Amino acid sequence: MGEFDLIERYFKRAARQPAGQVALGVGDDCALLQPAPGTQMAISCDMLVEGRHFLPDVDPAALGHKALAVNLSDLAACGARPLAFTLALALPAADETWLAGFARGLFALADAHGCELIGGDTTQGPLNICITVFGEVPVVNGKSQALLRSGARPGDDLYVSGMPGQARLALDALQGRQHVPADALAPLRARLEMPTPRVALGLTLRGVASAAIDVSDGLLGDLGHILQASACGATVDTSNAIDLIANGADTSGPEGQFLMQLPATQRLALVLAGGDDYELLFTAPPSARAAVQAAALASATPVHRIGGIEAAPGLRLIDAQGQPVSGRFASFDHFA
Amino acid sequence: MGEFDLIERYFKRAARQPAGQVALGVGDDCALLQPAPGTQMAISCDMLVEGRHFLPDVDPAALGHKALAVNLSDLAACGARPLAFTLALALPAADETWLAGFARGLFALADAHGCELIGGDTTQGPLNICITVFGEVPVVNGKSQALLRSGARPGDDLYVSGMPGQARLALDALQGRQHVPADALAPLRARLEMPTPRVALGLTLRGVASAAIDVSDGLLGDLGHILQASACGATVDTSNAIDLIANGADTSGPEGQFLMQLPATQRLALVLAGGDDYELLFTAPPSARAAVQAAALASATPVHRIGGIEAAPGLRLIDAQGQPVSGRFASFDHFA
Repeated sequence: MGEFDLIERYFKRAARQPAGQVALGVGDDCALLQPAPGTQMAISCDMLVEGRHFLPDVDPAALGHKALAVNLSDLAACGARPLAFTLALALPAADETWLAGFARGLFALADAHGCELIGGDTTQGPLNICITVFGEVPVVNGKSQALLRSGARPGDDLYVSGMPGQARLALDALQGRQHVPADALAPLRARLEMPTPRVALGLTLRGVASAAIDVSDGLLGDLGHILQASACGATVDTSNAIDLIANGADTSGPEGQFLMQLPATQRLALVLAGGDDYELLFTAPPSARAAVQAAALASATPVHRIGGIEAAPGLRLIDAQGQPVSGRFASFDHFA
Repeated sequence: MGEFDLIERYFKRAARQPAGQVALGVGDDCALLQPAPGTQMAISCDMLVEGRHFLPDVDPAALGHKALAVNLSDLAACGARPLAFTLALALPAADETWLAGFARGLFALADAHGCELIGGDTTQGPLNICITVFGEVPVVNGKSQALLRSGARPGDDLYVSGMPGQARLALDALQGRQHVPADALAPLRARLEMPTPRVALGLTLRGVASAAIDVSDGLLGDLGHILQASACGATVDTSNAIDLIANGADTSGPEGQFLMQLPATQRLALVLAGGDDYELLFTAPPSARAAVQAAALASATPVHRIGGIEAAPGLRLIDAQGQPVSGRFASFDHFA
């Protein structure tokens, strides 16, 4: 099967006519996007490599989902509405079963977000998936409504969405570093392989959050990017973070029971330095607490307050009594 | 060296402030582009893999140039003005000498076109370079000025720019399939490794050409895409194409002398099916012949008329006497 057949069969969907901001989709030298008046285009790009971002035996449909999900997560962190994406794919061989599964997972998530495949490239080579995603952010009175890393201010609250730490625990289990019973592993594995990009939350946080980032390299590592960009420090109350790994889990079920019997130090390490979470970490002034809760409700996304931003540089971890917590929580670096 | 250090050192240029359409560059979850009113954004994406798109021993500066050049060539084929690009890079190891060279070649070409690096990704993995490029096309009276593959009409002339075939000849020489004297090889190798994207020609062809494509997979193969998208056929006069491989070469010098002593059938095969040319193949009505020559002159790009578009489907090759030329000129398929 040649390159053009591959593109035709799996990635060009004839039923799709150019619509909305997509003036021209797959099939010419370039795609054409026409942003709506009064908007900016938010752009992000992520490359996924076998063995580093996913395991060789991953289900291709899950991989198709994840490859787009990690990019949509970047749009979410900017408060951008997904419009379209390009896909570049290097494959060792044209395996039709694999391609059909990959395309199914990819398009299921794309369609759920109204995000159109508008172009890309396929080539023979070691498996590599590179997606560039395009979203829309309004500009109001000359001011972009994008959520940036640089907007945190001393006095702001610090929040995180969802269940950070579960994805890393699943990875540890799949790679044999941690025993997890099969019935507890299944939902954790879904968190690792089929993460939910927090697009709806990002949209509802526009005008509410002062800064945001998506947690891909571990909560503390990504918090460091907010602190650096915003030139401030933070204190994280570990007593508010330690149980987030079981956030929303049924504590009478196998997953919840397994999670809550893990040693507290391990739970904390997973939450603070897990990686691959694709949760939103964000700040907002205390005056916006009701608005944050309303955004969480409107987007059906759990959100927890875990600390606060301070003028003093650096990152401090405290326990429920306000005492310093020691421990090294390395962030996940794809090039370490 | 960690991922963030890599990005900081080689790909984040502090002196560069957001300007023009780039509202926010490298360093947040997303970049922000603000297209000018009355414009569309042209988007293209190419992935380069070692051994398939470049040789393992290629000069990293040339590779940085080529990775962006092939993307700018897609913008050229649409008549789009380059604005910005994202770069995703998988590297086996963080080799600083390699990175410094790659960045030098990349940014030299980017700066020549005012095309800003606005984001991307780096990861450990088999060498893979994926660039997504963004350009601007005006919309006049509700009509996009983009050059498409689908605009060719029966009666149109068919043109190609530059020296198609040289890149493939260089590849054949470097891979031992063709002996080329060293003094002739040097300029040919530059055509393969440092192609010139025909951006200036593409811009001057807006409103002149009826259809365009860039020649990456071989002239006839890419002509096939125009014919398919435009639902018509074409005749190529091989007597007008056969010498294009030496187009502009000094026939008293080693390169020109070598090229002109190649068998005519080989020259023709290289021109028609070479691949990796990054020339523009385009159509325009006979009434636009003066305008095409003016565009070639204004962009300082040689352009030659090699045939014509016809209503009858299919592709016909003729000689100077109008007799059919037989021969199989396979196009270059990155996934064959």
